[in-house]
Amino acid sequence: MNRRDFFGAGAALGVGLAATSLTAGASAQTTEQMDKRAEAKLRICSQVGPAPGKDLAEKLEKIKKYGCEAVEFGGDCVGKGEERLKMCQDAGLEIGAICWGSHNGDLCSEDESKRQPGIDDHKAAIETAGIMKSPGVIYVPAFNGQTKLTNQEIRAWLLEFLPPLAEFAKDCGTNIIFEPLCRYEAYFLRQVADGASIARDVLEKAGIETGIGVMADFYHMDSEETSQMGAIISGGPLLKYVHMAGGRAEPRRTYPGENSMTFVDGFRGLKYIGYQGFCSFECGCAKEDKEQAFQDSIAFLRAQWEQA
Amino acid sequence: MNRRDFFGAGAALGVGLAATSLTAGASAQTTEQMDKRAEAKLRICSQVGPAPGKDLAEKLEKIKKYGCEAVEFGGDCVGKGEERLKMCQDAGLEIGAICWGSHNGDLCSEDESKRQPGIDDHKAAIETAGIMKSPGVIYVPAFNGQTKLTNQEIRAWLLEFLPPLAEFAKDCGTNIIFEPLCRYEAYFLRQVADGASIARDVLEKAGIETGIGVMADFYHMDSEETSQMGAIISGGPLLKYVHMAGGRAEPRRTYPGENSMTFVDGFRGLKYIGYQGFCSFECGCAKEDKEQAFQDSIAFLRAQWEQA
Repeated sequence: MNRRDFFGAGAALGVGLAATSLTAGASAQTTEQMDKRAEAKLRICSQVGPAPGKDLAEKLEKIKKYGCEAVEFGGDCVGKGEERLKMCQDAGLEIGAICWGSHNGDLCSEDESKRQPGIDDHKAAIETAGIMKSPGVIYVPAFNGQTKLTNQEIRAWLLEFLPPLAEFAKDCGTNIIFEPLCRYEAYFLRQVADGASIARDVLEKAGIETGIGVMADFYHMDSEETSQMGAIISGGPLLKYVHMAGGRAEPRRTYPGENSMTFVDGFRGLKYIGYQGFCSFECGCAKEDKEQAFQDSIAFLRAQWEQA
Repeated sequence: MNRRDFFGAGAALGVGLAATSLTAGASAQTTEQMDKRAEAKLRICSQVGPAPGKDLAEKLEKIKKYGCEAVEFGGDCVGKGEERLKMCQDAGLEIGAICWGSHNGDLCSEDESKRQPGIDDHKAAIETAGIMKSPGVIYVPAFNGQTKLTNQEIRAWLLEFLPPLAEFAKDCGTNIIFEPLCRYEAYFLRQVADGASIARDVLEKAGIETGIGVMADFYHMDSEETSQMGAIISGGPLLKYVHMAGGRAEPRRTYPGENSMTFVDGFRGLKYIGYQGFCSFECGCAKEDKEQAFQDSIAFLRAQWEQA
């Protein structure tokens, strides 16, 4: 019945994680850092899919027209960085993250032969992100069913292969961005605080201060977080990107404002940390008139921002 | 290279966790709840060990004398609720959580025969907590090495056995309190947001609003959280208890104020959520004069609270 006494030999008990040594207080947020934070801005971005318009050119035009500042591409942009950058500059837009994903979970596969090709492709995506002046490459270690590694094993392996990759991202002027997902899509990495702590450990191991971070997705947070604000503050300076969609209530995962989920609590978090990155639409649309729905959602988000 | 399209059949992919269905928006913190939060108070408590004094009677006297409001007992108090309650009432003190621990990990053991005896003992601790008007029983699912179950399996099993136990705790007027630990002690459950999300799922499954929650320990947070404040806000209304010790810098895990770790960021979180529970010393002492060190630490904490 007695509680284990852990004021003594605790360090000897570690499994997996203990291999990750932590320097005392090396990279946690400090009160001083938070007191010096910048003034937050709501800078709206959109994936290509959720934007209204019949083709890419028309989508870019409408994204710009309705007040967004950037567009987010999928993995199909890799290797086409200069072309996409030029296209977006001509449209008066910046470029959001590359929504890259898990590469079938190859980088964390139990089949070790799959890992290096995955890492090489990630590197190519990072290079493109750098060229496009994108904040980073969205990375999911594994969707459900994509690896047989346990959580402990995945985390330990991330700490092996990511430090040099994060350093490469830093040199390219961009970031690897972990995306925490909801339980229906992934068991490993479901909370922003967890992604932030892995990113922190990677940075600490690599001896760098940028090159890897985490994002917050309002749809996933609705299932996994007890507080949007708490999650986002845990991201803090490591929060590099935000995805926006309504939560799990019907209509599920459509334009913000189409279901009952509010964004005020999360936006308070963004204001608190002085977030100046992009908030990007990754969602469907429940209405018939997508162009009107897109405008309505942007108006809804700006009102929520004011309220926060 | 393409990102998995998950606007369709995502729910079919779930492993383990997907068995935990979530009602739309049922129990996340709402902006309205947070706007109605109470005014926070710093109510200091101490475990018996860290308090100065040669025996329990003298410790209680000093705990009271130096401005603490409560004392925290270990598992040895189970079955002695009335006696302890009387003793503390006579000393002018309330009673903090019961620091119970993992019961050797029995409740989550891969050896199923160990589970029910563990659950029965937990129930006895909950009963004593109720009698002592304690906020709850601190529960660690498993220290490193205490179970062969994977994280997924532990979480799924907690969602099986805890709903009735949480309901029992609610009926006793107390709580089961998850304690997230640092990596050197546990891999499963290291962050406050994770504990809060498990507690939320248990409450939702049991159809109750109280009976289980989470605690924040400043020592463990120093290794595992990127933000004390973010972690505590994620706890929100589910945050039932706080442990205080300096962080992992030397002197490690001693009285707050004895090493470089500040509490301001975490105390801002406690103020934000309107926390009125206890903050309890669980720490060693680096100084020769323990009685003076105890007073100095209390003064340090009150100053940090003012600054927050």
